[in-house]
Amino acid sequence: MSLEPLLHPRSIAVIGASDNKARIGGVPVDLLIRAGFRQVYPVNPKNETVQGLKAYADIESVPEVVDLAIIALSAELTLPMLERCHALGIPAAMVYASGYAETNEAEGRVRQDALSAFAARTGMKIAGPNCMGNANFSHSIFTTFGQSFQPGEVPGNTALLTQSGNMCATLFRMARRAGVTFSQVINTGNEASVEFSDYLEYLAGDPATASAICYIEELRDGPKFLAAAAKFRAAGKLLAVYKVGASEKGAEATRSHTAALAGDSAAYDAAFVRAGVARASELSGLADLAYLHTLGGKVGGSNCAILSISGAAGAILSDALSLAGGDVPTLPQAVQDGLSAQIPGHSMVSNPIDMTGNIVNSNDFLSECIRLALSPDDIDVLLLYTPGIYLTQALDQVERAAAESSKAIIVIDTFAMADRDRLANNGIGYFDDFDRAARAICAYGKWKRGSSPLPFRGGAGGGACPLGETSPLTDMPRPNPSPEGEGLSMTWPAFPAGRTALSETEGKAALARFGVPVVQDALVHSVEQARSEATRIGFPLVAKLVSPDVAHKTEHGLIRLGLDSADAVAEAFKAMMTKAEAMGVHIEGVTLEPMLAGGVEILAGVTRDPVFGWMLTIGLGGVWTELMKDACHALLPVDAAGAEAMLRSLKGFRLLEGYRGAPRADIAAAARAIAALGEAVLAGGEALREVEINPMLVLPEGRGAVAVDALVLLETQT
Amino acid sequence: MSLEPLLHPRSIAVIGASDNKARIGGVPVDLLIRAGFRQVYPVNPKNETVQGLKAYADIESVPEVVDLAIIALSAELTLPMLERCHALGIPAAMVYASGYAETNEAEGRVRQDALSAFAARTGMKIAGPNCMGNANFSHSIFTTFGQSFQPGEVPGNTALLTQSGNMCATLFRMARRAGVTFSQVINTGNEASVEFSDYLEYLAGDPATASAICYIEELRDGPKFLAAAAKFRAAGKLLAVYKVGASEKGAEATRSHTAALAGDSAAYDAAFVRAGVARASELSGLADLAYLHTLGGKVGGSNCAILSISGAAGAILSDALSLAGGDVPTLPQAVQDGLSAQIPGHSMVSNPIDMTGNIVNSNDFLSECIRLALSPDDIDVLLLYTPGIYLTQALDQVERAAAESSKAIIVIDTFAMADRDRLANNGIGYFDDFDRAARAICAYGKWKRGSSPLPFRGGAGGGACPLGETSPLTDMPRPNPSPEGEGLSMTWPAFPAGRTALSETEGKAALARFGVPVVQDALVHSVEQARSEATRIGFPLVAKLVSPDVAHKTEHGLIRLGLDSADAVAEAFKAMMTKAEAMGVHIEGVTLEPMLAGGVEILAGVTRDPVFGWMLTIGLGGVWTELMKDACHALLPVDAAGAEAMLRSLKGFRLLEGYRGAPRADIAAAARAIAALGEAVLAGGEALREVEINPMLVLPEGRGAVAVDALVLLETQT
Repeated sequence: MSLEPLLHPRSIAVIGASDNKARIGGVPVDLLIRAGFRQVYPVNPKNETVQGLKAYADIESVPEVVDLAIIALSAELTLPMLERCHALGIPAAMVYASGYAETNEAEGRVRQDALSAFAARTGMKIAGPNCMGNANFSHSIFTTFGQSFQPGEVPGNTALLTQSGNMCATLFRMARRAGVTFSQVINTGNEASVEFSDYLEYLAGDPATASAICYIEELRDGPKFLAAAAKFRAAGKLLAVYKVGASEKGAEATRSHTAALAGDSAAYDAAFVRAGVARASELSGLADLAYLHTLGGKVGGSNCAILSISGAAGAILSDALSLAGGDVPTLPQAVQDGLSAQIPGHSMVSNPIDMTGNIVNSNDFLSECIRLALSPDDIDVLLLYTPGIYLTQALDQVERAAAESSKAIIVIDTFAMADRDRLANNGIGYFDDFDRAARAICAYGKWKRGSSPLPFRGGAGGGACPLGETSPLTDMPRPNPSPEGEGLSMTWPAFPAGRTALSETEGKAALARFGVPVVQDALVHSVEQARSEATRIGFPLVAKLVSPDVAHKTEHGLIRLGLDSADAVAEAFKAMMTKAEAMGVHIEGVTLEPMLAGGVEILAGVTRDPVFGWMLTIGLGGVWTELMKDACHALLPVDAAGAEAMLRSLKGFRLLEGYRGAPRADIAAAARAIAALGEAVLAGGEALREVEINPMLVLPEGRGAVAVDALVLLETQT
Repeated sequence: MSLEPLLHPRSIAVIGASDNKARIGGVPVDLLIRAGFRQVYPVNPKNETVQGLKAYADIESVPEVVDLAIIALSAELTLPMLERCHALGIPAAMVYASGYAETNEAEGRVRQDALSAFAARTGMKIAGPNCMGNANFSHSIFTTFGQSFQPGEVPGNTALLTQSGNMCATLFRMARRAGVTFSQVINTGNEASVEFSDYLEYLAGDPATASAICYIEELRDGPKFLAAAAKFRAAGKLLAVYKVGASEKGAEATRSHTAALAGDSAAYDAAFVRAGVARASELSGLADLAYLHTLGGKVGGSNCAILSISGAAGAILSDALSLAGGDVPTLPQAVQDGLSAQIPGHSMVSNPIDMTGNIVNSNDFLSECIRLALSPDDIDVLLLYTPGIYLTQALDQVERAAAESSKAIIVIDTFAMADRDRLANNGIGYFDDFDRAARAICAYGKWKRGSSPLPFRGGAGGGACPLGETSPLTDMPRPNPSPEGEGLSMTWPAFPAGRTALSETEGKAALARFGVPVVQDALVHSVEQARSEATRIGFPLVAKLVSPDVAHKTEHGLIRLGLDSADAVAEAFKAMMTKAEAMGVHIEGVTLEPMLAGGVEILAGVTRDPVFGWMLTIGLGGVWTELMKDACHALLPVDAAGAEAMLRSLKGFRLLEGYRGAPRADIAAAARAIAALGEAVLAGGEALREVEINPMLVLPEGRGAVAVDALVLLETQT
């Protein structure tokens, strides 16, 4: 592993080491000594010893080539020191200093660029700058000046990876309170060289790490993140993330806080879905996800059976699960009968199951109820509400049931009296709050089943779309051109120099080369030509001005619908030309095209996210997308099946299914057309800026879907 | 107060008192003794003494007429004992026994009805049955067999009122963990006589109670609840509720659990908005609301300034507040300049404010930053993120700032290291979790400002509508008939006997009497009449079959649009008659009415909720309401201003404002028409079951709004 000297060093020099255990150069020395780490070399020209260890006057005096140099110097002194370390052959360094890009000042930015360039040139693995270092609990190695991480902690198999030093300490404490123990704790700092996804890739291969919980502000390299996430999935490891910046204010705060590129929230949502990561909607939820993972994979999904001594608690848990996206399936009649035989009276046994106070009745009552409730195949988890002494009295029964079951049993004790350690030792989960438990179980269960929920924090209705249950990442199939597309060129025409957009006619023609069905139009330049072409095409017609200078033509009266005679076409032609001339735009002519009756309008567009690249957005046409935010997003590539899944995730999907007696729309054709759009964009590559089909008309089943308008924006050639 | 003997008794007999302090008849005796309550009389025919007190053989032997008899007997023995107590003049009783309506068995239901009838006949105040009793911490009086409530607790000014014994204990413990102390803790049980809102009314007048937190499954008497809530508001007391049953499963579980009428979730939402209660979306949030109220009213709203040593924490809090419905306003430039002068470097000062590590710099730095951040009028709350030792080092500065400010300062310490008691003593709030803090502050702030948020748990998009900022409850103005309505009769015509609905024509005519503008139609019975009336009205026309037997006519082809000639009308008439005859429905004829061009369709309907009475629902027409759940609800009465506020709360409201170049719709006229609909329904009273206008066409501004169709359903006369 290339990050081995950084994250698992065998020897460490602390440059700028201090005798004062509270100072930034003193903390790591103190921690390493107390952790029993032997090969630590304090470097300090003024002292004979540092904290009882022999001190070295300079790094050149250190008797071995250490794996890692911790640079506890000011920003000005850091780069020269790194150069000396590199000259000695030291492969890795940790830079604590601030005063780099995080200052939002030119000087800091220049300094950070120099550090990045140095790392790139030398290949030295440099953490930070402006980072607080790491704690490797698996091997008890501390390279941090943070006081939250202390030798003596029980090592665990969860890694913590954060882009904020403070959130590193916060999440560590939150997770420790939730009973999580750690393999590695890593704070990335400014990521001038080694960056978030480099660490993630290391952790994917770290045998001591079974899960990683991550605090993310912005990612620099989307594809690298996706690749590292794929390794987590392949290894069966949990990757759980919390991404800040869902609200505008939050995004603003982090943009000023870090030196990273701003990523669009929708693109992150789409990327996280594609990556198959578990998503926490709250910071505290990250700790809970890691905690559930420590139950040894027993949480297989979010279908819960609820066994409660209180009808109220059953109802509250049902509400909480439903709100969080889980389910409380009705139990099969045979199971209900079995439960009724156990529980006297007329209690509810359909799920939630109300045991009332009968839990104390016999030695086998509770274990038998648990066994029954967990018996159906579609139940993943048993939630047990037995607060306080009810649990104490029956704990041996719960332990017996847990030992016999491969499914998770999770105790909810709102009295917060349960013996959490004893439960953990028996593989039994524990929460003291209904809604927090529900959120965690649902997020974890969805991850376990291979599909993430639709986590669009702050968005009114839009969301990233789950691409099927398995979210295949690495080998996502490219869309196949439709069978009728055998003769397609699958290439873009040469883009005219200096243009920033194609005309509608050019755009549609170009997309057609990739198999996107388009409405064929006629370009006319005179009233006479308009009359004759209109008569040839037939009525009613749509007339549109063609100009690369006007993106939204409806607002300017440059699209005229329902023209039903040659006279009407002629009048419209003249009116539009007059208007366009008044606007002073470049006029290429007017297109005439058949006005299609019936069908449902959708929009499909692809934009380029600076972090993750091409992102496809699908929505229902017009007001649906704009007012209701009924749209969904996915990173390319998206094949026809993926496009159909996206369409199905829209709230307004029923409009395509034949709503209120309308004919069912040709959904499969729409999906193929969208896939072809994606293929076209991928083929266009860097030359394209954005491509949008709006509207695409989805005609009744069997009649296809056609792009009525197309907007193709080009990158300015440089 | 009529509940005084129940909730604040001066003397208590415990009938069925036990020597065993763990038994149901032993716990209250033990608690009362330990609480130093002197006038407690154990009644037990078998013992000379109970827990060291003289025992009485029967209630008749007790030497005084006690205020309260606690009946710790089985269900069979309870009613006879109540009769004996009543004969002695005992005014109140507490019934612990189960075996009543909660069993879902006929025997239990009969038993409960007998208890209700006895209480109604005698006027005795009877708590329960199936309740676990109360704890009056203000006066250290315990009438409960619950073990969670113990003498020696510091009394507080929060009351806890729950419909579940278990949730009573759970919420008590949750709130105690959050630092809340209590005046009264009340579990209502089956509410055979004294019911939820009776307790609420008592608490509104209880001088020891400043706030109540309530767990609600179902309310029996909506108007009584609204009246009690109004008293809370009038007294400036917080009323905070958590209502279970938002999901179908949750509702199912409580319906089986209690013997109450099922209330519709939307009606509860609307009622809570009208009542001006604070709503917790999670059970734990109830405790947090009570906790915030203990800060002495310092939380004036949910506009927060965020002062943080960590940019990350600022961003996370911004996200959390935004998600919870709060705001993080940008600070005025002068304030930003002041902060910049305090904080070195180029930190963010616009809000959130990033102090970085400068907090330790001087003795006045933090108090000055707080003072500046709280100075703008539109800032209600200061959120301070200074975890761990940062807070410890600067706590005196925070205390100084708190003493000087009438606004709330709330510390977020994710390290959970803060000295909570010391903070509380200085009126400083504390949370250890970002999102929980944000949810609580936003829910409390909205309540404080007089408008509740739109809390539609589980609903996809619908919600209860806030009726302005002040939510006047008791004297909500009745809608005024529009000026043109001077000559309106404001009465319903006599309803024909045996009918379950009015015809569309009848319905529209009746609504017109209340000032609802309707499309005037002509009822025709023959092809010839159709031709002549159509020619008189003018084209295009809409033709509809009139039949009280068909509610949704579009689906059956019994509405025909866009008829543009007498021939088309004649053809439509014949086709509809043929179809209706085939369906075998009663035919009253066909209406012809002008087909109105332009405008936006909305729907407005009033249904009767079994708990809260008439509920108005407003939505955009057709697919908007059905697919997008874009509707909102409010209890009647609703005046025109309220109706307009409801319209504005719709996601699709922009369609009415003139979307994409369409003319602005006559919103004021629509609001007046909706208010008139509400007035009509209130006037119709018990005879009506449901009234719906769908669609109401809102024409361009100045042209009004008209009911195109009206559905009036009648209660079956009995």
